Amino acid sequence: MIYFDSASTTKLNKEVLDTYYSLLVKSFANSESLYDAGMEMNTLMEKSRASVASFLHVAPQEVFFTSGASESNSAIIKGIAFANKNKGKHIITTQVEHSSVMNAYHQLEEEFGYEVAYLPVNEEGVVSVEDVKLALRSDTILVSIMYVNNESGAIMPIDEIKKIVKKSNAVFHVDCVQALGKLSIDLKDIDCASFSAHKINGLKGSGLLVKKQHIHMLPLINGGQQEMGLRGGTANAPTNIVWAKTLRLALEHQASAMKKIHELNQLLRNELQKIEGIHFNSSDRAIDTILNFSVSGLTSEVLMNALNAKEICVSAQSTCSSKSKSASHVLLAMGISEEAANRSIRISLCEENTEEEIRFFIQVLKESIKKYGTNRV
Amino acid sequence: MIYFDSASTTKLNKEVLDTYYSLLVKSFANSESLYDAGMEMNTLMEKSRASVASFLHVAPQEVFFTSGASESNSAIIKGIAFANKNKGKHIITTQVEHSSVMNAYHQLEEEFGYEVAYLPVNEEGVVSVEDVKLALRSDTILVSIMYVNNESGAIMPIDEIKKIVKKSNAVFHVDCVQALGKLSIDLKDIDCASFSAHKINGLKGSGLLVKKQHIHMLPLINGGQQEMGLRGGTANAPTNIVWAKTLRLALEHQASAMKKIHELNQLLRNELQKIEGIHFNSSDRAIDTILNFSVSGLTSEVLMNALNAKEICVSAQSTCSSKSKSASHVLLAMGISEEAANRSIRISLCEENTEEEIRFFIQVLKESIKKYGTNRV
Repeated sequence: MIYFDSASTTKLNKEVLDTYYSLLVKSFANSESLYDAGMEMNTLMEKSRASVASFLHVAPQEVFFTSGASESNSAIIKGIAFANKNKGKHIITTQVEHSSVMNAYHQLEEEFGYEVAYLPVNEEGVVSVEDVKLALRSDTILVSIMYVNNESGAIMPIDEIKKIVKKSNAVFHVDCVQALGKLSIDLKDIDCASFSAHKINGLKGSGLLVKKQHIHMLPLINGGQQEMGLRGGTANAPTNIVWAKTLRLALEHQASAMKKIHELNQLLRNELQKIEGIHFNSSDRAIDTILNFSVSGLTSEVLMNALNAKEICVSAQSTCSSKSKSASHVLLAMGISEEAANRSIRISLCEENTEEEIRFFIQVLKESIKKYGTNRV
Repeated sequence: MIYFDSASTTKLNKEVLDTYYSLLVKSFANSESLYDAGMEMNTLMEKSRASVASFLHVAPQEVFFTSGASESNSAIIKGIAFANKNKGKHIITTQVEHSSVMNAYHQLEEEFGYEVAYLPVNEEGVVSVEDVKLALRSDTILVSIMYVNNESGAIMPIDEIKKIVKKSNAVFHVDCVQALGKLSIDLKDIDCASFSAHKINGLKGSGLLVKKQHIHMLPLINGGQQEMGLRGGTANAPTNIVWAKTLRLALEHQASAMKKIHELNQLLRNELQKIEGIHFNSSDRAIDTILNFSVSGLTSEVLMNALNAKEICVSAQSTCSSKSKSASHVLLAMGISEEAANRSIRISLCEENTEEEIRFFIQVLKESIKKYGTNRV
């Protein structure tokens, strides 16, 4: 199997799996229990929280374990919106956010009377700092912009945007899912952030929510004393304990991984460029892990089937919408036609990919165009 | 270690662990992906959903995987409340619900203007069917009552209450966490229900939400197409896949486990009765898995420390509130004094417990009363 879908999910790291398995075997105690077995789990979990905090340069009290980035996004967006409804109901985001963000905003608009500004992006998929500045109002309570787009790989100017938002009364939330372990993330002046473990070779069902101490939000999942009262439910202690190792390994490998991925991306781009009828949807300034392109005369569906037959795993749009019949909202926002969006393919790379895999993919792509292409412009 | 805290969490079943581990090793694909590896995970997950549905006698489309029962409770309560706000804002529950339920209601009252009736319970911890009937109004949109109380073991008259609620316009939600694998649960005329895997020897971070098809609710965790659009986030497929086995094993063992637990409970009651100054907080009609009592002249804290020194694991109040300084809201609602509530101990039994463990516990208890008791009335 050739796996070119690391933006969707990644292979579980063997070291993480081994530690996790040994935790599952070793202890099942509730980490909130007051007897030794419980307190031991709690100590390990708090050690993991402290490590994660130190890697992200925030305080341990600013790190909350969740069941994934979609929970983190929903919790932050709705938790901030509800906690600040007396200050205002205006929110700013972009047209290209992840479905967990988009649908949280749609809910706030449709059910709770919030007003959401969905800022456009340019042809590279990047939001304009000036547009954020112009959209800010005195009643803007939240600005929420992703770091790296999961379909186009566009990198948003977060460091510039945060300077603008800092001058306002709004909370600044950044969905860092596709940036973690790939770009250096500076959380200074970012109030809230979301992270996922399974995008960096960790476990599924495992996310992080960073919330700075001065930010007030309402809990999404109610419950007891867990997670400083902000996230109820018996802690998934074994999962939370391996967050530290998952993040450490990702950060340790980041430089070497990104160097290799850059080379693979360049090779892929060069080879694709030689094929007639290929249009790149990802700009050459996008993150190296993601390369989105459209193939003339070949729909995503037909090409994905042909690739699947050769055990090559790629996506069209975000996996969260893989079964949707409508074209990617991200590509449409970038000005790509619906017809071209329906021919898009997203390759997402990881360190384990090889030059041989790229070459084999190019060969299968050429054969597929020859066999199934209806229009070889 | 003697583990008398199964109402808090349970030991992971070896068969469940083995299957889970082999899934983690075998595949990491996103179950929403359209290539073979993804579709295989999806097939396994849908097979698990169908099995769970068949065990619970509901349709597969009525079973939703969540990260735990606290998520299920929050999702149902807030999802139903928000979806029905135009029909009414009156809700009925009891004074003895789990913190995930109580705090969801507090949030609805404080932040969203809902009116919640917290029905009292009798000295056995049981809510009155008549009280439910009297509390129902034309604008009541939700009635939410737990099946078995997690602190007292009181069994609520759910089968009678559902007949009453059925005649109203309200949705009926039952938190079934402490009943699953212990009592037979008939979900007919129950609109929504919550379940947890880790209370029946399954994984932590794993819950179920049952919602009948005709019930409309808003999603708590927003996202893509996952879980029929009602619960976003990349599916925790390996965890969801082992739900079927977790539930099957629990149900297969239910009769024999409960028979053994009944005998252990009787032995424990008989032995405790012989000790001066023991007051039972659990009625003898409570579920056999839970026995709550107070010891004269000995606070929960002191006794728990003494038991912990002998590696005996018990709780005072719910583990979700283990670090709280205030007395259990459940015991107070049952009319127990604050002072007696602060001396409460909850023993919760499982099939693996033995007569020898009970006898050893009784011995340590007697020694502790002798050593630390200030008032041997």
